Amino acid sequence: MVRTAEKKHDMAEVVNLRVDAERMRADFEELTEIGATMSGGILRLALSNADLEARLWFANRLDESGLIVSDDDAGNLSGVLYSALPNVNKTLIIGSHLDSVPNGGRYDSAVGICAAMECLRTLRAANVHLPVHLEVVDFTDQEGAWFSLFGSRCFTGKLPANALKDLHDPAATSAFRAALQRAGIHPDEAYKAARSPETIAGYIELHIEQGSRLWSANKQIGIVTGIIGRSTYDVAFYGEAGHSGTTGLTERRDALFGASDFITRAHHMIRALNNGSVFNCGSIHVEPGAFNVIPRLARATVECRHPDEDTLSQLESQLMELAFSVAQEHRLRLEVKRRTHMPAASMSTEVVDAIRHALRTLEVENSMELVSYAGHDAQMMSSFTPSGMIFIPSVNGISHNPKEYTEWDDVVNGANVLLHTVLQMAYTLA
Amino acid sequence: MVRTAEKKHDMAEVVNLRVDAERMRADFEELTEIGATMSGGILRLALSNADLEARLWFANRLDESGLIVSDDDAGNLSGVLYSALPNVNKTLIIGSHLDSVPNGGRYDSAVGICAAMECLRTLRAANVHLPVHLEVVDFTDQEGAWFSLFGSRCFTGKLPANALKDLHDPAATSAFRAALQRAGIHPDEAYKAARSPETIAGYIELHIEQGSRLWSANKQIGIVTGIIGRSTYDVAFYGEAGHSGTTGLTERRDALFGASDFITRAHHMIRALNNGSVFNCGSIHVEPGAFNVIPRLARATVECRHPDEDTLSQLESQLMELAFSVAQEHRLRLEVKRRTHMPAASMSTEVVDAIRHALRTLEVENSMELVSYAGHDAQMMSSFTPSGMIFIPSVNGISHNPKEYTEWDDVVNGANVLLHTVLQMAYTLA
Repeated sequence: MVRTAEKKHDMAEVVNLRVDAERMRADFEELTEIGATMSGGILRLALSNADLEARLWFANRLDESGLIVSDDDAGNLSGVLYSALPNVNKTLIIGSHLDSVPNGGRYDSAVGICAAMECLRTLRAANVHLPVHLEVVDFTDQEGAWFSLFGSRCFTGKLPANALKDLHDPAATSAFRAALQRAGIHPDEAYKAARSPETIAGYIELHIEQGSRLWSANKQIGIVTGIIGRSTYDVAFYGEAGHSGTTGLTERRDALFGASDFITRAHHMIRALNNGSVFNCGSIHVEPGAFNVIPRLARATVECRHPDEDTLSQLESQLMELAFSVAQEHRLRLEVKRRTHMPAASMSTEVVDAIRHALRTLEVENSMELVSYAGHDAQMMSSFTPSGMIFIPSVNGISHNPKEYTEWDDVVNGANVLLHTVLQMAYTLA
Repeated sequence: MVRTAEKKHDMAEVVNLRVDAERMRADFEELTEIGATMSGGILRLALSNADLEARLWFANRLDESGLIVSDDDAGNLSGVLYSALPNVNKTLIIGSHLDSVPNGGRYDSAVGICAAMECLRTLRAANVHLPVHLEVVDFTDQEGAWFSLFGSRCFTGKLPANALKDLHDPAATSAFRAALQRAGIHPDEAYKAARSPETIAGYIELHIEQGSRLWSANKQIGIVTGIIGRSTYDVAFYGEAGHSGTTGLTERRDALFGASDFITRAHHMIRALNNGSVFNCGSIHVEPGAFNVIPRLARATVECRHPDEDTLSQLESQLMELAFSVAQEHRLRLEVKRRTHMPAASMSTEVVDAIRHALRTLEVENSMELVSYAGHDAQMMSSFTPSGMIFIPSVNGISHNPKEYTEWDDVVNGANVLLHTVLQMAYTLA
């Protein structure tokens, strides 16, 4: 007999479904051993050995859980729980990712992977069949070691035509192509991962907040209503190399002096704006890079974010004007390249309502709505299918750091909210 | 018959001696092919393949020139012209180096090597025997790819006891040891290169100025009276890694923001001091170094110089106080390590007089005295033996740059001044 949640007499049982917290914990501990660093963090850059090892682990766990394992042309790795109901032709996607930033934390994404897999196992064990198929997906390179949101870009058919043949930076392009090939992904076939939106019911993801709002407000669950827009730039200042002892101070065209001035002033500008703008300069590359040579080149990796798309583009102009005037003051040549742009995204009201419904089912009262200041695959998915995200608290708001931490009770609670959101979405979006 | 310059009737001939400019040019062109870069510069870091190739070339040229080739335990490579006079027990050292900075210029040091070798050939061809032996030396790692002035430190017995067993930076230490071993130099035997000062008559080196003073003043020759003191530091700011989108602006402890502020303010401070102080920040290393992670670590390589030893040490204090107060303002932890210190050095009046004598002999009138703002092996040699340097003009003062250029006439003139300074030193310092 196939038990279906549609049948009235089964609903009480479905309402009482909960994930197996112990089983999920065991998965979490296993997964976070892969790429673990001495400092307690995670180094699992997309397509690295550790990432590939984590994918193998994930494929095995999906398989052992009785899910149907597959991967697509962009390397996105899926486990599917097919519904036995007749005429099911849509799939609900529950996403997350296995890759990390350099020396990142244990919770970012591992929570989403383990909870999604646990939800499918719980439904399979309870023999619940929904009006949609359920698919948990590990998206390739969410964090952007090579190409931010690469997997979900391909999945939603948004991979730019020249993305993998970029002549502006041939070295980086060929390294990325090589890394893809090593992982068994053919760079020129990745676009074939595109799915038809009419086959997809919706998208949901559980994630740690990575900020301190939930934790400070003592809330257990965050209902994400939108995701911040984000642009990244290479900002390169070119001066002239010279002997650091003999070149007169007024003759110097010091690229790093200029870049430092820019970084400092950009930070002050953002703080003065005080309008929700966010700025980061995460790295700087200096050439030739010797004690006794005046820097010829300083290339900074710049990122800015704002929840409103117009304000974001105004912010980008302000930053580039600042870079230009600093370059002029220091008699440097400026070379700016916009690397990525991720427009601000709204989450679907249907998914938001489904999360609210799940919270009522579970009698979780301490929740709040918020905008995500971090980028997620949901940004790609949101213009493709009704999408949403559930956040759980990050202790002290620390993330992308080995000290990243979330209480296990919050992870379990989040997984149950995910489970009941999936159940609700299955009926409203089928 | 052994012709000696001591005999009155030979002095006229010796006075008329000049280097063979064509032969020297051929050497210069050959040498500057080794490690040549696409941009017309030189990449010949100490102990690199290019440096080892240049050393092999130099050994062969010395040998073909009839000089006695040898190297010492620190890898310093010598060609000796032994005097046939009786009771000669001192050697006059004519130094330079074959290594370059990353993407440096063609003239820095190659001029010194070729001119020194040419002087010995000229004297050998003229069968001149002086009251000293003459030794041209390529000193290992003058530029400090591994350890600034390594060769001359060892030569003068000044290698610090723990220099090659430095526990503070084990990775760099073991890389340096490996590089030495690859070049056939045993790290723990390098100190044996130390020579006895009583066997050395003096030290002289021809070099490009690397600044614009001679060129601006239209002078052909610079008589170096002193060499600037120099200290280098690793200045590391430690903050906290975090998600660049979600961490509140006031909560951030951004190591690169702090380091940029320090670099900017240090440059402004030096310009405000306007007392001959020189500052360079040649590179910066950022961790973890991703677009979307707040920098946890920014380690800047800082260098400062002043011709006066007391003012230099005051300058060092001022810079470190600035670093400390910037770190406090940004709530960062500061870690400072003094990497090297090279005290300011005076050149020997006997050598300065010998250069003046050579200029009179050659009827070179447009010379000036100056302090070197660059470090040289003469700094090590000056407390060991009477030492001096001869500078020739750098066009536009550009150095440590592929655009480094010196007129060939100035090189030839410099080589002749070197030749006659050597002759004069041979008599006054024997």
